[in-house]
Amino acid sequence: MLKVGLLGAGRIGNVHAKAISAHPGSKLVAVSDVFAENAEKLAAEYGVAVKSSEEIIADPAIDAVLIATSTDTHSPLIEAATAAGKAVLCEKPVDLSLERARACLAAVEPTGQPVMIGFNRRFDPSFGALKAAAQGGEIGKAELLALTSFDPAPPPVEYVKVSGGLFRDMMIHDFDMANFLMGEAPVTVSAAGSSIVDPAIGAAGDVDTAVVTMTYADGRIAVIKNSRRAAYGYDQRIELLGSEGLLQAQNQLENLVVKSTAGGVTGAKPTWFFLERYMPAYEAEWAAFVEAVEAGTPMPVTLADGVAALAMAEAAARSLAEGKPVALAGIQ
Amino acid sequence: MLKVGLLGAGRIGNVHAKAISAHPGSKLVAVSDVFAENAEKLAAEYGVAVKSSEEIIADPAIDAVLIATSTDTHSPLIEAATAAGKAVLCEKPVDLSLERARACLAAVEPTGQPVMIGFNRRFDPSFGALKAAAQGGEIGKAELLALTSFDPAPPPVEYVKVSGGLFRDMMIHDFDMANFLMGEAPVTVSAAGSSIVDPAIGAAGDVDTAVVTMTYADGRIAVIKNSRRAAYGYDQRIELLGSEGLLQAQNQLENLVVKSTAGGVTGAKPTWFFLERYMPAYEAEWAAFVEAVEAGTPMPVTLADGVAALAMAEAAARSLAEGKPVALAGIQ
Amino acid sequence: MLKVGLLGAGRIGNVHAKAISAHPGSKLVAVSDVFAENAEKLAAEYGVAVKSSEEIIADPAIDAVLIATSTDTHSPLIEAATAAGKAVLCEKPVDLSLERARACLAAVEPTGQPVMIGFNRRFDPSFGALKAAAQGGEIGKAELLALTSFDPAPPPVEYVKVSGGLFRDMMIHDFDMANFLMGEAPVTVSAAGSSIVDPAIGAAGDVDTAVVTMTYADGRIAVIKNSRRAAYGYDQRIELLGSEGLLQAQNQLENLVVKSTAGGVTGAKPTWFFLERYMPAYEAEWAAFVEAVEAGTPMPVTLADGVAALAMAEAAARSLAEGKPVALAGIQ
Amino acid sequence: MLKVGLLGAGRIGNVHAKAISAHPGSKLVAVSDVFAENAEKLAAEYGVAVKSSEEIIADPAIDAVLIATSTDTHSPLIEAATAAGKAVLCEKPVDLSLERARACLAAVEPTGQPVMIGFNRRFDPSFGALKAAAQGGEIGKAELLALTSFDPAPPPVEYVKVSGGLFRDMMIHDFDMANFLMGEAPVTVSAAGSSIVDPAIGAAGDVDTAVVTMTYADGRIAVIKNSRRAAYGYDQRIELLGSEGLLQAQNQLENLVVKSTAGGVTGAKPTWFFLERYMPAYEAEWAAFVEAVEAGTPMPVTLADGVAALAMAEAAARSLAEGKPVALAGIQ
Repeated sequence: MLKVGLLGAGRIGNVHAKAISAHPGSKLVAVSDVFAENAEKLAAEYGVAVKSSEEIIADPAIDAVLIATSTDTHSPLIEAATAAGKAVLCEKPVDLSLERARACLAAVEPTGQPVMIGFNRRFDPSFGALKAAAQGGEIGKAELLALTSFDPAPPPVEYVKVSGGLFRDMMIHDFDMANFLMGEAPVTVSAAGSSIVDPAIGAAGDVDTAVVTMTYADGRIAVIKNSRRAAYGYDQRIELLGSEGLLQAQNQLENLVVKSTAGGVTGAKPTWFFLERYMPAYEAEWAAFVEAVEAGTPMPVTLADGVAALAMAEAAARSLAEGKPVALAGIQ
Repeated sequence: MLKVGLLGAGRIGNVHAKAISAHPGSKLVAVSDVFAENAEKLAAEYGVAVKSSEEIIADPAIDAVLIATSTDTHSPLIEAATAAGKAVLCEKPVDLSLERARACLAAVEPTGQPVMIGFNRRFDPSFGALKAAAQGGEIGKAELLALTSFDPAPPPVEYVKVSGGLFRDMMIHDFDMANFLMGEAPVTVSAAGSSIVDPAIGAAGDVDTAVVTMTYADGRIAVIKNSRRAAYGYDQRIELLGSEGLLQAQNQLENLVVKSTAGGVTGAKPTWFFLERYMPAYEAEWAAFVEAVEAGTPMPVTLADGVAALAMAEAAARSLAEGKPVALAGIQ
Repeated sequence: MLKVGLLGAGRIGNVHAKAISAHPGSKLVAVSDVFAENAEKLAAEYGVAVKSSEEIIADPAIDAVLIATSTDTHSPLIEAATAAGKAVLCEKPVDLSLERARACLAAVEPTGQPVMIGFNRRFDPSFGALKAAAQGGEIGKAELLALTSFDPAPPPVEYVKVSGGLFRDMMIHDFDMANFLMGEAPVTVSAAGSSIVDPAIGAAGDVDTAVVTMTYADGRIAVIKNSRRAAYGYDQRIELLGSEGLLQAQNQLENLVVKSTAGGVTGAKPTWFFLERYMPAYEAEWAAFVEAVEAGTPMPVTLADGVAALAMAEAAARSLAEGKPVALAGIQ
Repeated sequence: MLKVGLLGAGRIGNVHAKAISAHPGSKLVAVSDVFAENAEKLAAEYGVAVKSSEEIIADPAIDAVLIATSTDTHSPLIEAATAAGKAVLCEKPVDLSLERARACLAAVEPTGQPVMIGFNRRFDPSFGALKAAAQGGEIGKAELLALTSFDPAPPPVEYVKVSGGLFRDMMIHDFDMANFLMGEAPVTVSAAGSSIVDPAIGAAGDVDTAVVTMTYADGRIAVIKNSRRAAYGYDQRIELLGSEGLLQAQNQLENLVVKSTAGGVTGAKPTWFFLERYMPAYEAEWAAFVEAVEAGTPMPVTLADGVAALAMAEAAARSLAEGKPVALAGIQ
């Protein structure tokens, strides 16, 4: 039974608390949050102790920590927890600073502690089935990958300001998905973006609509479309063209009812947002973490994966700023 | 916190144990089964006591019992449990004998205890959405209902022999769904059937493929198609034609991946069987039961509903035997 | 070059005129109609002569006649045309009287002239692909056939009164499709029906909503659903369950656009009615007729097929009237 | 009745001959081709005269010419035909040289003769419906356009060598579609491309897989994906995200049959290539041309549209060569 301390009791912390508690091999034992009431509410719901992050990390009875705090605390908490011998599952992104994330990676490696980054989409059953089909050669050799990720509604500008920007906050999931599906990092990253959804996002220095194209050493190409707004719900689709066919992962719908009237044939919308769409993926992510910790096998998503995706986000941001493609190798 | 005793620890008993345990307002406290090892295995998994059904019913600390035993014990257990002041959720069918089921209904009524029959499909989100749309007038006035229910593979003949036959064992779900969607019982029931899937089923006196047509007092018509075998998985669809349109509830698929190759465009199959398809419905069913017990409100599916569906099964069996439509009113 | 006389210049006559003219191996040369203006309008459009039906049949320069007149004239015109040595393509139904249709069949046989009945749906590419897949064993052995045919809107009651009723006028297409797909006639026919769409149709002695179940000697079952009204357009679907799977032919849509908004995900409706849906089938039907006439090979749909479907319509009408299944063998 | 001379009797010339002949308001009267046998075969099929292109252009009895010759002859033939007072429908692209195409445009304008460029996809019913929905405000303000165009199989390298390259030969359709849907030209064009489908295409200096991103003055973004190979057939899809929703135009399938077996749920593939998919669009294109010529109204697609798309292809080629986005305004 893996005893787990949860750092961070916000929205995503609550998602993880549910997954930790539902898993037969793990037990939530303590929770921390900078906002005491968040921690107390979650602690009450699950019957666990409220502690500080430092206390949780220092507690020898705790085997693993799940870091769901604000992004700026991720690197120091990963370093502290691994130094204290904990296994770590940390939410994305590793850090907003690529340099800091790389320092974290360097600091963690000597500890030998397992660290997993929470790229939950890798654990979506449909995306997993798509990858398995591609790896099984069902469409021959992969050539062209297209990822579509649209959020249902833009976040508040206050969030945007501290988010690190669309590339580091939102598209980082797609960068990781590209790495997951293509099996290697791209050579170049080229970004286009604008703040057409909400001018306030542009005024805050960010974009809300973006297309990023990536090229690979062997000629493959990947393209990512992001928008902060899809009025119909969370749009999460993948297309992978190969030499012998196409794989598509389609949206999950709210229900299976179709209505045909004089006004048209209407089906359900995609599920509204990531909680509805990806709760099973969060549970599978946690199960994979527990299994790897218990078995001592490599993490299914590593800290290095987190750094790699961050480098791509950095490259995209630089490409957008400079108005030209950027070589990933040159990103420091 | 509703304290629950589970009578029957077979396949469906395990489904219910999971739903009871997952619900924050109920707690599984004891389990019985005629096969001791079944009871012990389930009891160990959930950390509860093994008792006899009689002990559970007699235990004043237990608030409710869930009856998931063999069909021939349903009526006596419902009667004993309600006499002992328990709330009851009993699996379908109430009984194989309509007369016995009616006697059970008569015995229960004076106790005033709540009894719910486990027609889980009423709690399927898509079927619920279909009913809500129909009730909301989205397709005008209902005219023609078509239910498709195909199991993935036929049961062993030994099961068929004690099942009460396709109409009482399998189509009873569709009879209840027709009542749920049409809002009243039909006037006539007309059945066609054959044992084309497995001649051994025919030799056992049952059919494995059947079409039942029902007419309603106001001219509406319903038709049910059943087959014990659909090689592609559990096929559970509904179509309701109204004066202003059509509502369809489609199958739930294993995943959302579509593969296009020279061989065609291939999507995932329907989920394999009722556990995969209806687990959320079983959880919602249990939640509805708990809520109604706690609030003292009417059961969302009553013992009378169970008797009504059984009468339709009886009528269908008689129609098949007699080779002509049967008036439901004449079924004794 | 097959020289063709067209008897009947109404709506369906115009459909056939188009198909005849578009075919490189046939040429429309004359047209008749009891309403002179109909004939003149069509004749002007195609630059052909207006003649009486008798003149067309007597004209030795004409090789084939297409009969698209009112149903009561079909049998005498088929007899006259075959006696005059013409090849004949006649619209369905052969006659409203089964006895008269059988007499027509008996009269035609000695002439040795080819007669085809216009069951256009056999030439629909999707239905053809479904049959080919079934015959190719792609779903194993057929077990349960379900046909859905809903018209977009009910016809005027004046039409209903002379139509012969839903079974002979509308469902006759489905009876023929069942014969086409099942490869033999059923043993029993059982009908339910009501006039729920339009009480005036009931007052005229007909039904507008019907379900007919048919059983076959080997245990197979077929069920047909008909409604005179589907607010969303012409609903023409087929499902065939076999021992190894299911074949479905879905509706043809007006276009391929899907719109996703906060209101739902909306696609195009089915094409509106038979002209939109089946024009390619009418052209393929005509091409098959021309090819068979020129090659001297058997007609792809025979006069006997027309009589067989009419017998099933007769059986359905009798089943509805008598309130019980009817043996097809007993239909005289 | 518009009398039409067809210049070029190759594959696309035959497509146009069919559309010209099928239209009630136009008549094919002469055909030319540098390969005499091509011209003679088509002439025999339609019963028209074989002439030289010069003779057709000089013939005062001919009202319009359709130019379906090799691309290098388009500009001179457009100039000669308009100088001779003909209305012209010319296949895409106008020319492989943007400079030459601009000269052609300058030469044609003083003649006042109508010239239409054959961007057939504008006349596809689904794409037309998508544009109408967008213009009707059904998804609010457009933000992000994504075009997918995959050919079923790469052309011979010999064709590639004279084609002008993927951008001018294949993606030019998508450039025009972007202009059609976005209503204006982009500001920048950025291309990625590789020859991953067939290295011989790369050796010939071209790419077979490409992604082009375009930005617009108001912040909108468009992205085009092209591949010369989709093993499952011609993949022609459009997605337009707007402030209030998403419009998608999906592929047209070979038929409407769906097969569900233990191996999965399989539907028909997209129609194989442009002839199967776009024949109705070619007919609608021709009808629009005839209507505009007869009415004296502006061409629905102009020579200037052809030049505009060519400039985008030129920009994409330059972007690929230079490895950076290119401002369309700078393309000379």
